[in-house]
Amino acid sequence: MIKVALIFLLLLQFSVHAQSQVSIAKSFEFESKILKEQRTIVVSLPDGYDASKAAYPVIYLLDGVQNLKHVVGSVDVLTRVGSMPPSIIVGIKSENRMKDFSPTKMAGVEESGGAKVFLNFLSKELIPYINNTYRTNDFSVLEGHSLAGLFAAYTLMESPDLFDAYIVMGPAFWWNKEEPAKDFKAFLSDSDTLDKALYFGVGKEDGNRHSLKRFVKELKNTTPKGVRWKHEEFDDEGHMSAPLLNNYFALKFIFSDMRLPQAVMDDFSSEKFLAHEAGIMKKYGQAAKQPQEIYVPLALELMKQKDYAGAVTVFRRNAEAYIMNKYPQNYVWLAEALEKNKQVKEAIKVYEQAYTLSQETGYGEADKFAEKIKELKAKL
Amino acid sequence: MIKVALIFLLLLQFSVHAQSQVSIAKSFEFESKILKEQRTIVVSLPDGYDASKAAYPVIYLLDGVQNLKHVVGSVDVLTRVGSMPPSIIVGIKSENRMKDFSPTKMAGVEESGGAKVFLNFLSKELIPYINNTYRTNDFSVLEGHSLAGLFAAYTLMESPDLFDAYIVMGPAFWWNKEEPAKDFKAFLSDSDTLDKALYFGVGKEDGNRHSLKRFVKELKNTTPKGVRWKHEEFDDEGHMSAPLLNNYFALKFIFSDMRLPQAVMDDFSSEKFLAHEAGIMKKYGQAAKQPQEIYVPLALELMKQKDYAGAVTVFRRNAEAYIMNKYPQNYVWLAEALEKNKQVKEAIKVYEQAYTLSQETGYGEADKFAEKIKELKAKL
Repeated sequence: MIKVALIFLLLLQFSVHAQSQVSIAKSFEFESKILKEQRTIVVSLPDGYDASKAAYPVIYLLDGVQNLKHVVGSVDVLTRVGSMPPSIIVGIKSENRMKDFSPTKMAGVEESGGAKVFLNFLSKELIPYINNTYRTNDFSVLEGHSLAGLFAAYTLMESPDLFDAYIVMGPAFWWNKEEPAKDFKAFLSDSDTLDKALYFGVGKEDGNRHSLKRFVKELKNTTPKGVRWKHEEFDDEGHMSAPLLNNYFALKFIFSDMRLPQAVMDDFSSEKFLAHEAGIMKKYGQAAKQPQEIYVPLALELMKQKDYAGAVTVFRRNAEAYIMNKYPQNYVWLAEALEKNKQVKEAIKVYEQAYTLSQETGYGEADKFAEKIKELKAKL
Repeated sequence: MIKVALIFLLLLQFSVHAQSQVSIAKSFEFESKILKEQRTIVVSLPDGYDASKAAYPVIYLLDGVQNLKHVVGSVDVLTRVGSMPPSIIVGIKSENRMKDFSPTKMAGVEESGGAKVFLNFLSKELIPYINNTYRTNDFSVLEGHSLAGLFAAYTLMESPDLFDAYIVMGPAFWWNKEEPAKDFKAFLSDSDTLDKALYFGVGKEDGNRHSLKRFVKELKNTTPKGVRWKHEEFDDEGHMSAPLLNNYFALKFIFSDMRLPQAVMDDFSSEKFLAHEAGIMKKYGQAAKQPQEIYVPLALELMKQKDYAGAVTVFRRNAEAYIMNKYPQNYVWLAEALEKNKQVKEAIKVYEQAYTLSQETGYGEADKFAEKIKELKAKL
């Protein structure tokens, strides 16, 4: 059977070239003086990082090797559709989870209670290293599951300035008779204002669901001002499977203010539009943007409504946000809006960009653009 | 500011070693005589592939570069929790989607109608190459989104023997006045039996939702015998975002017969248990197994119920299925069950395995195991 298959293969002469690997992150050993050990760190940079000068939000992912693949996958899709900004993912490999993630020593667990040391490692070694090695902006997220979910809550209490958003998945709030969970509740009810996004997710088949539910019930009555939070339970997911859906919906929730509000689209003004875009770029880095599926139909609609100035605003933002795509049509749209808006000189300049790009990329409509430039120049 | 940070960095002397890349797939150029071009193919092998001799199911993923990361992430989690078997993912990069995925020529779309040629490429070149290069078993899945979802439906009609399961996401069933979709309906209503799993997923904000809904409504009345199918719509997901959730829930659905039925656990017999396990290994490859979170609590419960023979069955399956973990405790559990079941000689042999592994991996309880072996030998 195998022999026949081999002959078949030879006859067809399948030919395969240029094997390479598809990499999602780099991995390295970080020498920690605080932990007194080497720790494996994985770093996944967003598409376009090298070609850009933007600074990016950082997602610090605990159990970072175990969760790397699904988090990279979700971030890839959510970034592409504009539900979150391009971000850097920093995963920390776990060695002794019981020790590193537990806030207090629990009877019978010899090495527990190491959360303070591990938090020091994050705040004094890893985060400074990441900020000095990569272009990070001010927004960062801490994400943890199970004991690491408990650690994320502990971190918010101990160092409330360290992260802007927390993803707490199937947390071990049962730890030490729910004592750290009680401290966390007290911390939240004692805080008047707290400018954070908090996401609590759990599978409905996860035993940790119950202590989380008790915690959330009290949180409802004592939410500090400024806290945006959400609690979700997922059907048919257990303790080990839920993190995929938890992380996906947590990221959608945390970055939900990225999206251009429907109100801005329905009652468009360039000022409101640009204010929203400037806001997300300030908060989430220069690479934060809407998907083209938002910009292009909006601007085409404005053209239809003869709001040419508005269309220029949106098409310009579209061309600038997607400059790395080197897509001539982005410039053609902008030039058409400029021409309609009687900015003929500017339209010529933008057609010239389309012409140059078209020649550079082999897009193939350079002649048409040259013709258009000649036509517009005659009008001046 | 940067200067201060740099000095801080120097003082702390962060030290980083041994950079490497985290790869999720290999990528290569496949020379296709049928397509008359080179096509980029990505192949992601399951964990443990090299160390095993098992054959694996294959998931053929259209738009395979665009969807690779999230599919690898979901497969990683679902495999780990036993919701699907370890599988090979083969992604095919798209070049001219309109041409390759459209079953018929549509007026105004010059290069449309190439699905027949693309299907030939799959069946005569790519699939034979994959089957001859990797250890594949008989089960395979075809997965496509949008136009590629239409192509997946077309493939089921044209070559019903080629795949066992089909994931159809936000399909372009509107193509050519829904003509191929009508053919697909006719094919399904004309088929008496069809041993396939079909999953149809779509985002509620996807315009393709409506033609899919019409299709599914008729499918309900004309489902061939043997077809297992599911249709799901997802809140707050658009055409480009829905594939992540579509794929995740599709895989859970397709492989839902992997899971050990609750009835087998509640009313345990070794025969029923082994029949289920043999069944999934036959269908989904030798590496198909339950997560340890199923085997271990089940066997411990049987120990409690003094069904020691049953516990031996389950712990043996657990030790064999997770042999690559080299985890001595798997053998200790089995040995304890054997001893209770009065199979002292076998218990000694298994303790010896635990002892050897413990020394090999530095697990650290080798002395205890040696003591136990001595104790049991004295009983013989």
